[in-house]
Amino acid sequence: MGMKNKITMLDVTLRDGSHSMRHAFTEQQVRDVARGLGKAGVPYFEVSHGDGLGGSSLQYGFSKVDELKLIAAAREEAGDSKISVLILPGIGIHEDLVNAANAGASMARVATHITEADVAKQHIELSRNLGLETVGFLMMAHMAPTSVLVEQAKKFESYGAEIVYVTDSAGALLPHEVSEKVRALRENVGCKVGFHAHNNLSLSMANTIAAVEAGAQFVDGSLRCLGAGSGNTQTEVMAAVFDRLGYKTGVDLFNIIDVANDVVAKFMPRPQEITGSSLFMGYAGVYSSFLLFTQEAAERYGVDEREILIRLGKMKAVGGQEDLIVEVAQQIANEQAVAK
Amino acid sequence: MGMKNKITMLDVTLRDGSHSMRHAFTEQQVRDVARGLGKAGVPYFEVSHGDGLGGSSLQYGFSKVDELKLIAAAREEAGDSKISVLILPGIGIHEDLVNAANAGASMARVATHITEADVAKQHIELSRNLGLETVGFLMMAHMAPTSVLVEQAKKFESYGAEIVYVTDSAGALLPHEVSEKVRALRENVGCKVGFHAHNNLSLSMANTIAAVEAGAQFVDGSLRCLGAGSGNTQTEVMAAVFDRLGYKTGVDLFNIIDVANDVVAKFMPRPQEITGSSLFMGYAGVYSSFLLFTQEAAERYGVDEREILIRLGKMKAVGGQEDLIVEVAQQIANEQAVAK
Repeated sequence: MGMKNKITMLDVTLRDGSHSMRHAFTEQQVRDVARGLGKAGVPYFEVSHGDGLGGSSLQYGFSKVDELKLIAAAREEAGDSKISVLILPGIGIHEDLVNAANAGASMARVATHITEADVAKQHIELSRNLGLETVGFLMMAHMAPTSVLVEQAKKFESYGAEIVYVTDSAGALLPHEVSEKVRALRENVGCKVGFHAHNNLSLSMANTIAAVEAGAQFVDGSLRCLGAGSGNTQTEVMAAVFDRLGYKTGVDLFNIIDVANDVVAKFMPRPQEITGSSLFMGYAGVYSSFLLFTQEAAERYGVDEREILIRLGKMKAVGGQEDLIVEVAQQIANEQAVAK
Repeated sequence: MGMKNKITMLDVTLRDGSHSMRHAFTEQQVRDVARGLGKAGVPYFEVSHGDGLGGSSLQYGFSKVDELKLIAAAREEAGDSKISVLILPGIGIHEDLVNAANAGASMARVATHITEADVAKQHIELSRNLGLETVGFLMMAHMAPTSVLVEQAKKFESYGAEIVYVTDSAGALLPHEVSEKVRALRENVGCKVGFHAHNNLSLSMANTIAAVEAGAQFVDGSLRCLGAGSGNTQTEVMAAVFDRLGYKTGVDLFNIIDVANDVVAKFMPRPQEITGSSLFMGYAGVYSSFLLFTQEAAERYGVDEREILIRLGKMKAVGGQEDLIVEVAQQIANEQAVAK
């Protein structure tokens, strides 16, 4: 197979992986990962609380180490790699983005629910004013038809975003759906297009290939899949697969495998398997970061996690509605008590 | 998406999983898995030593419990599910197949290297004479061009095979390659077509979808991916994905998740992650069951596993040549000693 387009890999181990780590990354872990990613030539990697800048809180989980300290540490180790930060309007504020830029971030990814791009206007504008490369990150992309995705991406473009992402937060998209969505963005929006996968249906690599074949220029991955739910597209495997497919990523395969196995595998609290609950998140289409909360609520109220996830899917619950999980668990427990 | 064709799932947890278990399945484990698969309505599942009937040996690893005893136990628990056995000419003999049929097997899968179907003639004929549903299983399918695959499949057909499998033993195939191979078999061979994946490149689900879309009627999976290398297509996830894609498998999703999580997850010795070495097997294209031997040899001789795997790939090493692994490791160690 001949050489195809260049694609740009962005590693989210130090941001999406924060969920799996219960936000307890140490500075040493961040330095070691950042050094490895830099050495492997990964062009971008993200460092933030799992729920974005300012996410350290009672609701989302407190960070063990302040993310600004982690960004600065990563910047010292990262060599030629650029550092991105995630920011969700409503969680991260103006000051967080200014501080992140000062700490060494050069890209901001402003994330909203698939139907809510308009809450991102100020953040996008601020990011551009700070001189950051600016991304609109449309989460839970499976929850709206492609026409809505295009309309929302156009809003991001109008605010000044340079790249717009299809973000499969729930790991619920099928490859033909990814193709359709990415192709529609390439045809209708002037921004570059990115794709962010979760592996809840064992489709993260399939979907990432589908995205690239449909024209995506940016693709996200995480080392050893470290991320919410069943994790992300496995960065080091993606480098191998795109090499086999004839795409140019610029990532060194031996070095990227080394940081995955010698660094990340050693501190991961548990493997990123597809368990019954993460599978069900993809199948029912609910938010990946709900996983740990759902398991806890299921155990606390003695109900089946899958019942909780199916109901959350039907309710189209979104990030920020973590309180719903406990309500749903209580409701199922009550119904079961009545039925007995 | 409307209802598409019916596809037939075959679970290999109790055969390919034998590699990951170092062939130490207990009778209780086999009964529990068999009962769960039967309850979930999985139409076929396989029970044999990882290297097929008669594989229990010094070279391939001794089984903890005799496979005939395990087949009989599985048959007692399996309900309406049918039991298949794997047999490799040169390892399994005439008597093994007769005994397996007597113990309750109703399908035999006769496996050869992609270029060696002609060694399977007697086994295929015997299987038909025993009244077993008979499959030709072409391993290491990435090692020969599609024209050779078709020619070898036609041999299987001429011997009496009813189904022929494209078997990606090394987890090295890419989705477009799977499509091409399966489509060529559907167009040129009268047998039904099956596909068996390994997840070394995180493509098992992508490849399984590609196979079905190209016309495959049988697809293999294993619970929690339990199998050689990074394991197989995850059975319970496959059931969910094909449901979402509109194919009919007849498998109950809650029940199949239960046996995966409540039974298999509890006895797995380690998660089926994609490690550096299993990734490299897929990338270099070497035999999945080489994994543990390669790790042992790398450790023993103090060399990089990946160097061993790349050389084995270049040598086109095949199953049965496990001795080569140690030779290659020694050779690399010697070269490194000279270089120092």
